[in-house]
Amino acid sequence: MKFTINREEFLKAILTSGKVASPSPEDPILATLKLEVFEDRLEIIGSNGEISIKSIVPKFKDDKEILRDIKVGSILVNSKILTDVIRNLEDNEITFPVEDNALVRIQNNRFSYNLNVIRGEEYRDIDFDESGIRVELTARDLIDAVNQTAFSASIKERAVLTCLNIESNGNKVYFTATDGARLSKKDITIEEELPKFSINVNAKIFSEGIKTITTEEKVILFISDRNLVLKLDNIVILFTLTVGDYPNTKNIIPHNFFYKLETQANELLKVLTRVVLFSGERANIVKLTMSDSEVVVSSKSLQVGDASEKLSLYQYTGERLEISFNVKYVSEAIRSLKDETIVLSFMGEMKPFTVTSKNDDSVIQLITPVRTY
Amino acid sequence: MKFTINREEFLKAILTSGKVASPSPEDPILATLKLEVFEDRLEIIGSNGEISIKSIVPKFKDDKEILRDIKVGSILVNSKILTDVIRNLEDNEITFPVEDNALVRIQNNRFSYNLNVIRGEEYRDIDFDESGIRVELTARDLIDAVNQTAFSASIKERAVLTCLNIESNGNKVYFTATDGARLSKKDITIEEELPKFSINVNAKIFSEGIKTITTEEKVILFISDRNLVLKLDNIVILFTLTVGDYPNTKNIIPHNFFYKLETQANELLKVLTRVVLFSGERANIVKLTMSDSEVVVSSKSLQVGDASEKLSLYQYTGERLEISFNVKYVSEAIRSLKDETIVLSFMGEMKPFTVTSKNDDSVIQLITPVRTY
Repeated sequence: MKFTINREEFLKAILTSGKVASPSPEDPILATLKLEVFEDRLEIIGSNGEISIKSIVPKFKDDKEILRDIKVGSILVNSKILTDVIRNLEDNEITFPVEDNALVRIQNNRFSYNLNVIRGEEYRDIDFDESGIRVELTARDLIDAVNQTAFSASIKERAVLTCLNIESNGNKVYFTATDGARLSKKDITIEEELPKFSINVNAKIFSEGIKTITTEEKVILFISDRNLVLKLDNIVILFTLTVGDYPNTKNIIPHNFFYKLETQANELLKVLTRVVLFSGERANIVKLTMSDSEVVVSSKSLQVGDASEKLSLYQYTGERLEISFNVKYVSEAIRSLKDETIVLSFMGEMKPFTVTSKNDDSVIQLITPVRTY
Repeated sequence: MKFTINREEFLKAILTSGKVASPSPEDPILATLKLEVFEDRLEIIGSNGEISIKSIVPKFKDDKEILRDIKVGSILVNSKILTDVIRNLEDNEITFPVEDNALVRIQNNRFSYNLNVIRGEEYRDIDFDESGIRVELTARDLIDAVNQTAFSASIKERAVLTCLNIESNGNKVYFTATDGARLSKKDITIEEELPKFSINVNAKIFSEGIKTITTEEKVILFISDRNLVLKLDNIVILFTLTVGDYPNTKNIIPHNFFYKLETQANELLKVLTRVVLFSGERANIVKLTMSDSEVVVSSKSLQVGDASEKLSLYQYTGERLEISFNVKYVSEAIRSLKDETIVLSFMGEMKPFTVTSKNDDSVIQLITPVRTY
């Protein structure tokens, strides 16, 4: 095995796949990257067992030859050490010859680096196959959908509540996450009718994984029984699915509200940030008191003192209502909407309420209040 | 007690003193800041028992009134909560009236914040007195001296080796730090003759503490039996001294060398960074092989492989010499010198060697080598 490669492109690919390379207790070899060179490309695979990333360096990029002098083959090399060596070298091009499947000899007239490697066959089998149900999305839509929902997934439980649920219905794809106290749901409309599917993918791992996506691209999802494969231009990401029935959330989201507060995201966020500082031992809880004449956010604690602040810009319809909630939940919900005008809709003091954007009904954030003291 | 203050200046002073405010097991009240307002200034004191910072807000700054409407008095208020409240408010000016020594009421027509406070008398006595031996230094000299020495102090031991030793001799002030394997020494020449002193101050705490200093200022040191007080324009910092005899380091530093390598700091640092990646199980150790014809840095390990790299720019005088050392020690020593041309001077393979600047003999870095394998 041998190849000569543009150092910068090589490093970029190593960093992309290396992000997930880390040894698991069952498979210490996952500390390595698998480098496999074909006649027309280099593939670099990194994995931690739950997420695997394959980065592809083609022979040409923008008509410039970035990979040449190829002798096909595959080897494994420690991810961290390879990254550090390639990052610190100063040459523009690196020749990477493997001797006896055991050693890479990188050298010029000033230095000589001999890096131990392992035969490529020792790596675990990772199936990046493009099979199963095919869904094409814009990268922007996918990233938004994940950012607007994944934060509501549970971080404590191990089972399906730590997952983002992705399901199809007609020509819509729904993204849902809930930890029991709050729920986020987003839908994306696509052109063709989709086959039925409902899959669970760990929300934290999926959020991290899609950070590899740059927003100009299209993304193709391949959904099979065990895996979700995301295919980008020169990157393929494989997520292992979590088995289990996701709770039925369709009937949880209310539709008839008796109280409605329309207000400015920016002002409400700032007021919440200040007033919550006084919540003291009742961590993160504030009270919202709404009536025709004023909307007040307040909190109170024995330790710290008390605070109250009025909103200056709002429209409120409904009777007077007092409701208390966790500021973290409401702030994250507001921020996810990325809209300046937002709507909080209530059914009553102890009923879940929604936080939505005034101009976009594809996202809904549902939050359970806490008892007012 | 009452005052009206420019919010930005107030926040700056709170942040400066708040940096060290944190409760100690013996004194939980150190989680608070002491705010004491006089006819002509506000003083804010924070402390963790080992370091105390007093920030002063005068009535006027650049002819602008930043503090007014004063009723003298003192209170204690939780540092973290006060910081967060003042940081998040949007008014340019804040009125801070204390009621019954128990409550600060900050309000306008839109909000009302009532912050619990404690009587100022509950705070521990901290003696910022300007007494003892007086040494005046430029801030630049003090900062350089600490940055060029403190990193060599031990981080493991509890006693004097974790300290920076500061001592006088004639019209020189010496800064020394050592962990037993390396030693850093810097001298500053001042104009007048100084009384004899030798004090130990925790190196890590002192390094952190002087980050408050902006480089335009003069610094006056007041050295007493128990404390070192640093006086700046509107900040006074008190360090508690560590009791104990600092080791006599005068006879440790060699003066006659048989081998001398003059080279470029930047190139040597880069070569060390790359070659050390191959040190594997012999963490951080590389070998330097010097002769008239070439200077080679190399390392080798069973895990990773081996590497060797030649320096391109150097002057070497002496017989052929092989010496192995910890890259962290040598790199930190080189960086501390802030000079492009540096000199490594050796007495023999197993004798301590020095790293010095070609153009500045006020700093000396001494390093013990390790056995070459």
